[in-house]
Amino acid sequence: MKAYLAGPDVFLPNAAQNAAAKIKICAAHGLIGKAPLEDVTQISTGPPADMWRAIFRKDIEMMEACDLIIANLTPFRGASADAGTLVELGWFLGRQKPVFGYSNCAALFSERSQAQQAAVPDLIASVAVEDFGLPDNLMVPGAVELGGGLSITLPPDGLTRPFDALDIFEICVAQAARRLGLT
Amino acid sequence: MKAYLAGPDVFLPNAAQNAAAKIKICAAHGLIGKAPLEDVTQISTGPPADMWRAIFRKDIEMMEACDLIIANLTPFRGASADAGTLVELGWFLGRQKPVFGYSNCAALFSERSQAQQAAVPDLIASVAVEDFGLPDNLMVPGAVELGGGLSITLPPDGLTRPFDALDIFEICVAQAARRLGLT
Repeated sequence: MKAYLAGPDVFLPNAAQNAAAKIKICAAHGLIGKAPLEDVTQISTGPPADMWRAIFRKDIEMMEACDLIIANLTPFRGASADAGTLVELGWFLGRQKPVFGYSNCAALFSERSQAQQAAVPDLIASVAVEDFGLPDNLMVPGAVELGGGLSITLPPDGLTRPFDALDIFEICVAQAARRLGLT
Repeated sequence: MKAYLAGPDVFLPNAAQNAAAKIKICAAHGLIGKAPLEDVTQISTGPPADMWRAIFRKDIEMMEACDLIIANLTPFRGASADAGTLVELGWFLGRQKPVFGYSNCAALFSERSQAQQAAVPDLIASVAVEDFGLPDNLMVPGAVELGGGLSITLPPDGLTRPFDALDIFEICVAQAARRLGLT
């Protein structure tokens, strides 16, 4: 089965090595990892409007060709996960393909939302903070639970990992493979 | 046709009035607006784990019952749109139901990403900023363009609106209704 490896990993300075390491971990658990990066690097430069549409089309094609998603839901430039990753997560749920996800961050969404408010105040007063003890907006763990039958994989020791650490990813892949009956 | 009115509007202090105003605007353009708030208010209090799952299930049911999405993609607590809204946007694209969206913010995603980095530094150095002159991560305008055939509706005068302003929403609804052949 092919797993779409969604995440802000594509923005890492060592994105290619990161993708290769993730694909290797997938292989060890019986999954074929597909990283969107692979195709981005094949797109030649050009006008921005041509480039982004080419990347988008390539990503959608790769998503269509994959059987499941394993999403890096580590918060990215704000209280929540990366925007592109969240669109992809929803797409897989809409397509009724299995959805799995992990986060390297141990802090609750409510805590991160408050920290974000403290750093960059909300534009209007008294906007609520969602507080259900979850790792992100309820639609995110909801999508993972409904789509794959598991919770978002979080650091089991409650310690936030470096942004590019892969040990929580590996736990997630192992759980997904078991859930899918591959191991 | 029923339009799912996704957005962080549910967190506004005047969320009920906001939802009513949006539904009225939809009606003026031949659309039946459905705001997720309607159902949230019917869910009784209880343990957080029961409450969020009840809200999630209600939202998914409402999404299933709707024919299209009109998403408020105004940035929310970070460089990008609200996380729940993005999952819903992807879901509608995955289901091949029409996708429309708007933002009250006139700043580019690259500018907002840099501002976010300045306020809350990235956790590791040299993480790239996506810079295609777009209003959000390319998956967001890509989903809107592929799903509904239009761009994300932005302030035509280049002036950012208050977070809860509805004039850009109304332009978006009018464009969506035309695109769907309702007007």
